[in-house]
Amino acid sequence: MSFNTFGRIFTFTTWGESHGPALGATVDGCPPGVALDEAFIQQFLDRRRPGTSKFTTQRQEPDQVRILSGTFEGRTTGTPIQLMIENTDQRSKDYGEIAQAFRPGHADIAYHLKYGIRDYRGGGRSSARETAARVAAGGVAQAVLRDLVPDLRITGYMCQMGNLHLDPANFDASQIGQNPFFLPDASAVPAWEDYLNAIRKDQNSVGAAIEVLIQNCPPGLGAPVYAKLDTDLAAAMMSINAVKGVEIGEGMAAAALTGTENADEIRMTPDGPEFLSNHAGGILGGISTGQDIVVRFSVKPTSSILTPRRTINQRGEEIELITKGRHDPCVGIRAVPIAEAMAACVILDHLLLDRAQTGGVRGRIG
Amino acid sequence: MSFNTFGRIFTFTTWGESHGPALGATVDGCPPGVALDEAFIQQFLDRRRPGTSKFTTQRQEPDQVRILSGTFEGRTTGTPIQLMIENTDQRSKDYGEIAQAFRPGHADIAYHLKYGIRDYRGGGRSSARETAARVAAGGVAQAVLRDLVPDLRITGYMCQMGNLHLDPANFDASQIGQNPFFLPDASAVPAWEDYLNAIRKDQNSVGAAIEVLIQNCPPGLGAPVYAKLDTDLAAAMMSINAVKGVEIGEGMAAAALTGTENADEIRMTPDGPEFLSNHAGGILGGISTGQDIVVRFSVKPTSSILTPRRTINQRGEEIELITKGRHDPCVGIRAVPIAEAMAACVILDHLLLDRAQTGGVRGRIG
Amino acid sequence: MSFNTFGRIFTFTTWGESHGPALGATVDGCPPGVALDEAFIQQFLDRRRPGTSKFTTQRQEPDQVRILSGTFEGRTTGTPIQLMIENTDQRSKDYGEIAQAFRPGHADIAYHLKYGIRDYRGGGRSSARETAARVAAGGVAQAVLRDLVPDLRITGYMCQMGNLHLDPANFDASQIGQNPFFLPDASAVPAWEDYLNAIRKDQNSVGAAIEVLIQNCPPGLGAPVYAKLDTDLAAAMMSINAVKGVEIGEGMAAAALTGTENADEIRMTPDGPEFLSNHAGGILGGISTGQDIVVRFSVKPTSSILTPRRTINQRGEEIELITKGRHDPCVGIRAVPIAEAMAACVILDHLLLDRAQTGGVRGRIG
Amino acid sequence: MSFNTFGRIFTFTTWGESHGPALGATVDGCPPGVALDEAFIQQFLDRRRPGTSKFTTQRQEPDQVRILSGTFEGRTTGTPIQLMIENTDQRSKDYGEIAQAFRPGHADIAYHLKYGIRDYRGGGRSSARETAARVAAGGVAQAVLRDLVPDLRITGYMCQMGNLHLDPANFDASQIGQNPFFLPDASAVPAWEDYLNAIRKDQNSVGAAIEVLIQNCPPGLGAPVYAKLDTDLAAAMMSINAVKGVEIGEGMAAAALTGTENADEIRMTPDGPEFLSNHAGGILGGISTGQDIVVRFSVKPTSSILTPRRTINQRGEEIELITKGRHDPCVGIRAVPIAEAMAACVILDHLLLDRAQTGGVRGRIG
Repeated sequence: MSFNTFGRIFTFTTWGESHGPALGATVDGCPPGVALDEAFIQQFLDRRRPGTSKFTTQRQEPDQVRILSGTFEGRTTGTPIQLMIENTDQRSKDYGEIAQAFRPGHADIAYHLKYGIRDYRGGGRSSARETAARVAAGGVAQAVLRDLVPDLRITGYMCQMGNLHLDPANFDASQIGQNPFFLPDASAVPAWEDYLNAIRKDQNSVGAAIEVLIQNCPPGLGAPVYAKLDTDLAAAMMSINAVKGVEIGEGMAAAALTGTENADEIRMTPDGPEFLSNHAGGILGGISTGQDIVVRFSVKPTSSILTPRRTINQRGEEIELITKGRHDPCVGIRAVPIAEAMAACVILDHLLLDRAQTGGVRGRIG
Repeated sequence: MSFNTFGRIFTFTTWGESHGPALGATVDGCPPGVALDEAFIQQFLDRRRPGTSKFTTQRQEPDQVRILSGTFEGRTTGTPIQLMIENTDQRSKDYGEIAQAFRPGHADIAYHLKYGIRDYRGGGRSSARETAARVAAGGVAQAVLRDLVPDLRITGYMCQMGNLHLDPANFDASQIGQNPFFLPDASAVPAWEDYLNAIRKDQNSVGAAIEVLIQNCPPGLGAPVYAKLDTDLAAAMMSINAVKGVEIGEGMAAAALTGTENADEIRMTPDGPEFLSNHAGGILGGISTGQDIVVRFSVKPTSSILTPRRTINQRGEEIELITKGRHDPCVGIRAVPIAEAMAACVILDHLLLDRAQTGGVRGRIG
Repeated sequence: MSFNTFGRIFTFTTWGESHGPALGATVDGCPPGVALDEAFIQQFLDRRRPGTSKFTTQRQEPDQVRILSGTFEGRTTGTPIQLMIENTDQRSKDYGEIAQAFRPGHADIAYHLKYGIRDYRGGGRSSARETAARVAAGGVAQAVLRDLVPDLRITGYMCQMGNLHLDPANFDASQIGQNPFFLPDASAVPAWEDYLNAIRKDQNSVGAAIEVLIQNCPPGLGAPVYAKLDTDLAAAMMSINAVKGVEIGEGMAAAALTGTENADEIRMTPDGPEFLSNHAGGILGGISTGQDIVVRFSVKPTSSILTPRRTINQRGEEIELITKGRHDPCVGIRAVPIAEAMAACVILDHLLLDRAQTGGVRGRIG
Repeated sequence: MSFNTFGRIFTFTTWGESHGPALGATVDGCPPGVALDEAFIQQFLDRRRPGTSKFTTQRQEPDQVRILSGTFEGRTTGTPIQLMIENTDQRSKDYGEIAQAFRPGHADIAYHLKYGIRDYRGGGRSSARETAARVAAGGVAQAVLRDLVPDLRITGYMCQMGNLHLDPANFDASQIGQNPFFLPDASAVPAWEDYLNAIRKDQNSVGAAIEVLIQNCPPGLGAPVYAKLDTDLAAAMMSINAVKGVEIGEGMAAAALTGTENADEIRMTPDGPEFLSNHAGGILGGISTGQDIVVRFSVKPTSSILTPRRTINQRGEEIELITKGRHDPCVGIRAVPIAEAMAACVILDHLLLDRAQTGGVRGRIG
């Protein structure tokens, strides 16, 4: 039992507050002998880093990760890997006025009710800064997966922002890294920019939906009944700040389907079974089938906005609150690399879990 | 780490296959001194029981629960509670023809790939029969919650079946137990009956969506960052057979909202803070706020249908498969009491977890 | 977190009270495809069974184990294995008089203080009957180990009973099953019989020490720092009723050794490294080295004796208590098969844990 | 499941190698609102610190702890507490010659076999330096216990070093901090100094035994059957480097006792039950009774000695090895504050665990 740990065999425990001296992740259960250095992890952090476009918070954090333990001469040793990111740009004074107030839609009031004390600076522990530590941990998972399943590919992208939806017909994975939205459609970028600019100028924020596609995942991952692969993916995504819904394959739309529509028929090929459709999103009975795994989740709009809202403070007084500071107009953007990191950790964890129980041996067909 | 255990402090481990001699749940971490007998648990099982209407499987299982340990003179002792339900109506021969075949959309192929061996009778471990054990465990949780939070109310109901949607304007909780759909709208029952009859006659099945409403939940439950209350609720629901999506509050719709729309403003009342809306679904930063908790999830259509589908068998041969046997045309119906059971377990678990860390003391406002 | 679960990957949860309808173990994490039936497990239970000699309780329990789940056609399926043993000879009336009294040296008072309620019949959950469930779980572990490490051998035996000590010079493993003491020295049996007969006639009981020898254990098991192999073995043995001390290798005697005496020197052989002595008991830094693992533990004398002792009852009255009923004069005897079962579970658990992290690949020497 | 985490509710995960940039502990599950600062923790580290007498390693480490997260304005917030200690005096070159050699009696060979790679500098992860992180975590536990159980007292001391034994008749707790041996007997200090000086001059090392006395521990702590208080204390102590045996109360000597000798008789006093003896060491059935808890353990002699020993290296060559460097002649000395820290963590953990399950309510007597 741990409050701040994710995973079963490959685990990470994040620690740190938005405006403390540092934050990080303690990674345990990593296999030994895997090539790993700070530069490898850094590339994932750089994708998530704030301040890289006008659409993310202007807080300037280099987010340089340091490996404090668990590697030797460029390889993992099987001992805990401590990943530390120092906070350098904590302008605490920005947040002074909300020390006693509860932002509507924010964790402020919940933390106060639960703990009776909270580090209000920048949201403290509930800040999205915590996710930098996840991304660092995800980097370790990616290094191990590169060794164990070289052709595995985990690809996150935005598929919705407010009223704008990704047109699947235009899907082009190569475009994802070429725009500030992790959007796999170059043609839509100008419209998305205009839309978010308008939101921002309106002192508002907006929600988003993100999809993660996991390709070439080995079959057999997932440990039913309560450590199912989809259960763990759902938990992974729901644990990300501001996430309100998670879907696998058809997701909520499955409620409207009939059995004949939903059945992913199977045929045989020289390479093994092939599914004719993928309503299931790559997981049956909580176990991966070898099909593409498709996970989708929604992110609510940033609660910290410049438009005044009615709320109360700790003394129980009713007030109107504007949240100044440097906030993302669409926090869903940065959720993309975070979700990839979580997916990498879940897949690796289940790979190790599966080789514990089955030795990784698969049932034969044909 | 346990594959078949749910929970952190109040835990249950389910065991058993569809056509084995028995199935059950081993409940651990239950507080001592709580009144509990078989009749109390039985009422929850009776709600879930198959064979109670023409819309659920005609398998006739009395689902009588026996308490084999953990109580003494009608009270819990704090030791493990073993709940056993004997299987009595296992017509194994019904399933003989699918021993080697993989039903499209079913866990068959995934179990085979992972384990190399599976009890194919009735779906073995992947059968929805496993959920009887959850409902029994949920009964224990309900008994404890009755003591600890007497006014807590957990209410599940269907809100969608195929193309039919619950009209929120007609919501009437008192109707839920009065029809075969757990539908809180008496006026819609005839239409739902006609719809499902047509599906059934068409040798088809259909998906559904279920909502669970948790009222009077104390604030402060949930242990961020990785044991958040919404994370655990999402995992709980996603672990139920055939579930493909989970939503808290606005759920996937949050992607379309702006920050001003989504902010649940707060005012002060003599009884404490009051929220003016509930987009959050009762949870902020992973912690309950005292508002109603709203969880929704989708259930895919039953994969075992009488309409032939293309698939393969274990020898790698392509076949056409009809799944005979006694299957629910809408397995989502029976998901209602299961979801309530899971919700009860999650709430109790977090209540105990919270009193471990904070002693149940709440931060003060005003 | 589970109160009644042992293990990390291969786990078992025991349940049941001395005089309830049944007791058992829920085994989770067992690899699939392993041959397992009730007869195989039964042989371990038969070794532990009470009523087999005049030196163990005369309670007549057949201790017939039933497998309720987790196997199919004689093989494990990778799903939870429920092992149930029905209680048949619960003479509750024997225990009536101690319902309110606290036996000195017994768990009675501790359970009362903690839980406020206890099943006093036969000691309820604190009865040594709980260990039957462990032995059954150990049988599952033995079945898996037979597959994975065919030449592994786990041998328990008594090495001390009161003032009598095993003479290592007479050690003969073949004798262990030939006498009521699990004593590897036929020549000492008469003296041990006389000694224990005298204790019994004196309405007294006596302590014991047991040693478990694990031969041909693969190197590399144990996950430092807090899942060390010796840590888990110590926890396993200390969790057995009445155990007060646990030793690995030299054990407490290591306090008197010097570094030169204690160093197990190493030389090289064609088969790999060979240690010239085994003060370490086969474990260095929490990891098995391939040497024989040697674990020893003490069992205190049965607290239920016929000689009157001063104590109090639940009403706080001082009384003199004689514990009638059918009690073992040396409960340490039955600890032998229990300890073997615990050792089997620990070794298997670490084997699975190790293949999760390292894939079972060993570092090379030479 | 975590390899490097200790505890169930109040948990800590240690990380770091002897000669890496830093080491530390990630503490999770700490109650909020507890006064805590670096100075409070530092006092415990200072007691353990090497280089404080000629009887401990001459490595000069200030062991300054930094709190990187989890506190705000001098109080814990209920979020993870990261404790970091930077390594400053890592003379790596000292260890160059043992990079390829396996010290007899040391974890070197076991780590190599398991992981295939190890940070050989100073023993890497298997170094006793890891225990600094435990002591820091123990400091957090002590801060919480000061709040929750103000009169609890945890006192560790040496009771044996080689052939020298503490004379219980001379026990004087006030002397423990007044000599380099944590010895509660001033009169014996000169003899212990002479003895250890002789060992050191002889280029040898020696074992030790340590006792920890826990006074005023509340009754009711311990969660049978597999989270017993004595089980967890045994695991805690056995997890400390070089420990080979653990005893509770009578420990291994219980094997020689009869039931009449071992029964701790009870009488009633106005303050509640009183035991007339304490053979049990304060724990019955895995649950604390309110009596003094007595834990004892042995520490083997330091394996790194200047006397040449036969061994092999990684290439499989037989060599003679002298371990230069700065090693403790009796590593047991520094085990005293470590054991106190582990005991504090176990007691706090069970206090929180107990209030989760029972709410801390005790059964009544009288």
